Amino acid sequence: QEEIAQSNIDIDHLPSWNDTEAKKNIIAFVEEVTDRNSVNYVEVQDRIATFDNDGTLWTEQPAYFQLLFALDRIKTMAADHPEWKNKQPFKAVLEDDMKTIMASGHKGLAELVMVSHTGITTEEFEKIVQDWIKTSKHPTKNVPYDQLVYQPMLELLEYLRANNFKTFIVSGGGVEFMRAIVQEVYKIPSEQIIGSSIKTEFDYNEGNPVIRRLPEIDFIDDKEGKPVGINKYIGKKPIFSAGNSDGDLQMLQWSASNSKKNFELYIHHTDEVREWAYDKGSPIGGLEKGLEEASKNGWTVVDMKNDWKVIYPFELK
Amino acid sequence: QEEIAQSNIDIDHLPSWNDTEAKKNIIAFVEEVTDRNSVNYVEVQDRIATFDNDGTLWTEQPAYFQLLFALDRIKTMAADHPEWKNKQPFKAVLEDDMKTIMASGHKGLAELVMVSHTGITTEEFEKIVQDWIKTSKHPTKNVPYDQLVYQPMLELLEYLRANNFKTFIVSGGGVEFMRAIVQEVYKIPSEQIIGSSIKTEFDYNEGNPVIRRLPEIDFIDDKEGKPVGINKYIGKKPIFSAGNSDGDLQMLQWSASNSKKNFELYIHHTDEVREWAYDKGSPIGGLEKGLEEASKNGWTVVDMKNDWKVIYPFELK
Ligand SMILES: [Ca+2]
Ligand SMILES: [Ca+2]
Repeated sequence: QEEIAQSNIDIDHLPSWNDTEAKKNIIAFVEEVTDRNSVNYVEVQDRIATFDNDGTLWTEQPAYFQLLFALDRIKTMAADHPEWKNKQPFKAVLEDDMKTIMASGHKGLAELVMVSHTGITTEEFEKIVQDWIKTSKHPTKNVPYDQLVYQPMLELLEYLRANNFKTFIVSGGGVEFMRAIVQEVYKIPSEQIIGSSIKTEFDYNEGNPVIRRLPEIDFIDDKEGKPVGINKYIGKKPIFSAGNSDGDLQMLQWSASNSKKNFELYIHHTDEVREWAYDKGSPIGGLEKGLEEASKNGWTVVDMKNDWKVIYPFELK
Repeated sequence: QEEIAQSNIDIDHLPSWNDTEAKKNIIAFVEEVTDRNSVNYVEVQDRIATFDNDGTLWTEQPAYFQLLFALDRIKTMAADHPEWKNKQPFKAVLEDDMKTIMASGHKGLAELVMVSHTGITTEEFEKIVQDWIKTSKHPTKNVPYDQLVYQPMLELLEYLRANNFKTFIVSGGGVEFMRAIVQEVYKIPSEQIIGSSIKTEFDYNEGNPVIRRLPEIDFIDDKEGKPVGINKYIGKKPIFSAGNSDGDLQMLQWSASNSKKNFELYIHHTDEVREWAYDKGSPIGGLEKGLEEASKNGWTVVDMKNDWKVIYPFELK
């Protein structure tokens, strides 16, 4: 496989990337660590690449897709909960009052997520998420959510795998929410998707075993939780990691501390026309320390506006 | 790859297995789920196989290897802990008083495991375990612990992988203890090894990031914890699972509930000459309910004495 990858060297594996520094850096890194004659050659089993999801592989504006799922789910469930009409934060959800929803803070949002995500079996939850993704559209882009993945990043995932990297998602989002949606679109199997999780319990259920989703946090895969999650699930330090916010900083610090040649990538949202432009101070995907540290350490920063020819796969048509 | 597997049909992939029912059942299952013309054909991405470790892939007598590691480690650490000479359960460890150690019960054993396994970084722990496995020998077999794997099970793992199964370990043992030892011997990468875990924390450590092992249980991957761990780490229900004790029963029930064709295997320790003979009532690897359920459901039970030509790889020489 090593030689196949090498012989493909003249094919452009990243056609949706402009020929700017970001693309050149990525290719130089991959060619170096896969070159058996390089002192920085990395064995196949150590070619671990970890990717944040929201804002790194797909859009996260105007709100995380999982929060939009939670709100849709609350509306569906409302038929069985007439009391929600007069009870916050549910009242605000039913009235599409985003300002009040966000003002309900961590406690309110956590309540909405727990009510919409738990109390059912893992199999039921998977089906609910899959039905939602098939029938829902993004509020401003007006396409199904799973079309809002970044075409250049799909190419990057594929390019790394063609060079025998094992690609993982390491997201602050819920692991079972992502697994229900993104396996096909990213070509990443469920066992390579890591995320935040709630506690679950096995129920023998008189011979029809199920796993029930409980309203209790198990693990938050964000900030310091990302290297902890990588260690827990993968047990190896990545040589490649990509993120878009300060919540990814510790993951990038972790791969940067690899004694093997490594690569750290930040996606900077700079395209207010084709996507969104935000960084410092943004309540979603805030990026400040990460940019400073990228600059200090020579990490590669993607300028979406200038480095990417297209944002979404449907722009290729 | 599918066709390669089919064309190898006349090669004996399980040479250390006698031609008894266990072997025939395994082969019949694998041939059926990999046959594209079978109604029970299973797509490659769903060929998930989960194996218990202690007593299923390697020996667990006269005590779990991880407990023997903990005792050795306590002895090494004792130089810095003069107070242990007069403090139980440490005193018993230093005096090789196994009876008092075991009588210290869950609380005493947990204290020994925590003291010997935590308070260091993940990297330090990995090195300590690897040094231990290189320098220690089993108390009665008098060979390195990692030679006490079951040759027929190594062949089974390889046979499944040759048929495009993805093989996972799902053990009650500590995940980082196993990952430090068994990746090479089972040809299973760290990210496919699931086990019990302690809590850890990321420490930026002034630019030299480490993950520290904390003296607190994170997850117990045993009994009801096994299907929970499988769901958490893999996110798919196995079609093949193997264990040796009542602690594996829920894992086997979980794979048995797969709507796809599935296979459940119990290893029954029946060979008191070449290995050990134990089941019902054994404090290590107790097996009672599992045998009843195997019988009731037609699961395959390996009779080690009669089904296996050899137990350990070194018997082949
Ligand atoms: Ca993000
Ligand atoms: Ca066992």
